[in-house]
Amino acid sequence: MENKDFREFGHRVVDWVADYFENIEKYAVLSRVKPGAIKARLPLKPPAQGESMESILADFEDIVLPGITHWQHPGWFGYFPANNSPASVLAEILTAGIGAQCMVWQTSPAATELEDRVLDWLRQMIGLPEGFAGVIQDTASTATLCALLSAREKATGFTSNEHGFASGLTVYASDQAHSSIEKGVKMAGYGRDQLRMIPTDDTYAMIPEKLEEAIAEDEKKGLKPACVVATIGTTSSTAVDPLAAIGRICRLHDTWLHVDAAYGGSACLLAEMRWLLEGAELMDSFVMNPHKWLFTNFDCSAYFVKDPGLLIRTFEIHPEYLKTGADAHVKNYRDWGIQLGRRFRALKLWFVVRSYGTEGLQALIREHIRLSRLFRRWVEEHPMFEPMAPTPFSLVCFRFNGGKDDAALNAFNKDLLERVNASGRVFLTHTTLRGRYVLRMAIGQRTTRERHVREAWEIIVRSAEALLKA
Amino acid sequence: MENKDFREFGHRVVDWVADYFENIEKYAVLSRVKPGAIKARLPLKPPAQGESMESILADFEDIVLPGITHWQHPGWFGYFPANNSPASVLAEILTAGIGAQCMVWQTSPAATELEDRVLDWLRQMIGLPEGFAGVIQDTASTATLCALLSAREKATGFTSNEHGFASGLTVYASDQAHSSIEKGVKMAGYGRDQLRMIPTDDTYAMIPEKLEEAIAEDEKKGLKPACVVATIGTTSSTAVDPLAAIGRICRLHDTWLHVDAAYGGSACLLAEMRWLLEGAELMDSFVMNPHKWLFTNFDCSAYFVKDPGLLIRTFEIHPEYLKTGADAHVKNYRDWGIQLGRRFRALKLWFVVRSYGTEGLQALIREHIRLSRLFRRWVEEHPMFEPMAPTPFSLVCFRFNGGKDDAALNAFNKDLLERVNASGRVFLTHTTLRGRYVLRMAIGQRTTRERHVREAWEIIVRSAEALLKA
Repeated sequence: MENKDFREFGHRVVDWVADYFENIEKYAVLSRVKPGAIKARLPLKPPAQGESMESILADFEDIVLPGITHWQHPGWFGYFPANNSPASVLAEILTAGIGAQCMVWQTSPAATELEDRVLDWLRQMIGLPEGFAGVIQDTASTATLCALLSAREKATGFTSNEHGFASGLTVYASDQAHSSIEKGVKMAGYGRDQLRMIPTDDTYAMIPEKLEEAIAEDEKKGLKPACVVATIGTTSSTAVDPLAAIGRICRLHDTWLHVDAAYGGSACLLAEMRWLLEGAELMDSFVMNPHKWLFTNFDCSAYFVKDPGLLIRTFEIHPEYLKTGADAHVKNYRDWGIQLGRRFRALKLWFVVRSYGTEGLQALIREHIRLSRLFRRWVEEHPMFEPMAPTPFSLVCFRFNGGKDDAALNAFNKDLLERVNASGRVFLTHTTLRGRYVLRMAIGQRTTRERHVREAWEIIVRSAEALLKA
Repeated sequence: MENKDFREFGHRVVDWVADYFENIEKYAVLSRVKPGAIKARLPLKPPAQGESMESILADFEDIVLPGITHWQHPGWFGYFPANNSPASVLAEILTAGIGAQCMVWQTSPAATELEDRVLDWLRQMIGLPEGFAGVIQDTASTATLCALLSAREKATGFTSNEHGFASGLTVYASDQAHSSIEKGVKMAGYGRDQLRMIPTDDTYAMIPEKLEEAIAEDEKKGLKPACVVATIGTTSSTAVDPLAAIGRICRLHDTWLHVDAAYGGSACLLAEMRWLLEGAELMDSFVMNPHKWLFTNFDCSAYFVKDPGLLIRTFEIHPEYLKTGADAHVKNYRDWGIQLGRRFRALKLWFVVRSYGTEGLQALIREHIRLSRLFRRWVEEHPMFEPMAPTPFSLVCFRFNGGKDDAALNAFNKDLLERVNASGRVFLTHTTLRGRYVLRMAIGQRTTRERHVREAWEIIVRSAEALLKA
């Protein structure tokens, strides 16, 4: 492609994205294609000769677009959000154009130093204690695996890396914790048997006394409690584990405390939510995802550690072909995680923070929380619906409750969710809480306004009424 | 930011990238900033109020750009390339704009099905046997960790995931293998003690007889050989381990064979290089990086496995909040690797393959190989320089050899590299081979032409002459 063609198609593609932002409500939120339908339209063999950008873009619209589920739609209430924003997209264009691979300082000093600075901004913005050092990971799954590996090494005096992994190390998380913890426990070699799912209270928060009991019991058996993962904002219901109480137990038993605030961390930008971090000084590591609820393109996950030395010692490698003259004076983020190669992800976070300012970001997050309380009130006031968990952030867990038994209600709510999503106007997902099927209304898409939340509620009520009549 | 502003700045940013492509030779390849210089110019605190895009972009040019090392410069001969291309950047803009998180089929069916199809295109393009299934990973480090984890699970009958990791599993790679293998062996819990570095021959390729001996010795000790990592194109000198011979040993001992072709895999697009894959039917897994030498923006690493069931069984998780109605009928790539969240990376690979066509890609790769042979001839014909390893791909390992002893030559070549890179016109990196300091001339940047290679050679010769006089 000639550079003049890149320029021309670049403008067209930017215009396409701008149009997409403007017209996004015309699409059904959830893609309606059937399994295999897209693949069936793609040739079995790659083209021998290059095709025109014209025809590639036409196929993008014709074949790919119908198979896109629109995460940036204001009717997106599923899972958690994965927000982008105009400033973030602009940064992604520059990142792609520069195409730097930022594994060590020398391979782009600005990438390392901007990451260093912007993560310290983020640390201040959410009120993490001074001294925590940040690094961008691709996802919270990766960050949590890093924590589990560091905890393993610390608990074994850094001998696992060298000699292999002696079993007998245990990990603790609430019975509401994210699946990435189980996955990480498996990958890091602890074994699922060594993961203790600690019971939760009525708010689905970990009960510290139960954690204490489990640790004591394991120690009595000669096992070594290596890591506790506390969650600020669980995936099912955004429950908040009591950080300070858990942290004190961890210090007592010399156990690594990792905090999963992948979604909830963004709320810590608000002074009124800062209670979430009481006890933060007791943490060893902490992860939050700007790509969820901080308007920064996926992927961008911020991992903070109290002692970077433990992280680096877990991951460092020193092959000759990666040595540079600057190594003694700089950070080489390649040793702060699993991957060697690294994108320049700090740029988009910098663009976002500067473009919104902390007050602009706070206003958006505060509005999402306000909308979730409004939605919750509608649920509470309706005779046939009920909330199913507290709403500390911007997720409302609720269900239709027409008075039948739980099994029938589970089936009804499952049908209800399908019918609601079939509207194409909104997209919600579900979970189960204590065996009960629960709808999750996650409000956090950048462009979601009160009218979208109201429309969602109307669709939900209408769908329930229609189902009752059916 | 209003959408009209996004449109306007989007055009400006695209124009910036197009200008950058046109003027890239005006920049010094390697950033010249001193450690800490960029960070010192970034405010200690995030802005409270949003700033204008005007001022953010001005700071991008003023503060960030001087700290960028220009991987897309035609004078880039360092490490390996990390290419982008116009079509790939266009796809990245769309990916960023759509902002879909592609963890399961439902969250964007087109992302899953396009990835499925395009990786099968790639499989055909490089001549991998039928039946290998592909998935995009972020980097080869991650793909190799996946292989080591699958191998661990297979060797223990999938009990490590459940009960933790019994030691006694061994891993084998050549003494030239990439650092990500040592790192993966540590992370997966094997322990560095269990990694055997198999000696290499004069071409720096693994000696199969030595592998056989090491495995036999371990088995005699009651250890279980779990995984062999063979390399097609080592990082130091692009050596090629003999796949067929190694594969036969692996089958005999029921050992997982993972092939690291992160860089070399792209050469398999050429019929004349297809010998590299002799024995490919004996592999269990294979990784190549389209983000290195296939003109696809970082990150995009293609991981192929013979039996996806073993991969999925290693990584699968089934939390309620991720279940969808389509699960029985579709691929959910979340279970094909470490991360849960996934970018829509298949789009850029699709754009690249379609925009160049296989013949267009072959022509570029073939030209890079031709240029490396040309450069090698200059090295061979010069009385004071010598090649230091074979050149099967497009990397030339060489050094100045003025007849002194190795210690003095090592120091001289180190100085030479510094002087060459200080020119700002080119960037090379180094390695050591059998204790000798070696310069690596890696030719593979998309825009590199013969004149850039010739200029590099002139700078190298001139710099050596100047050093001799100094």
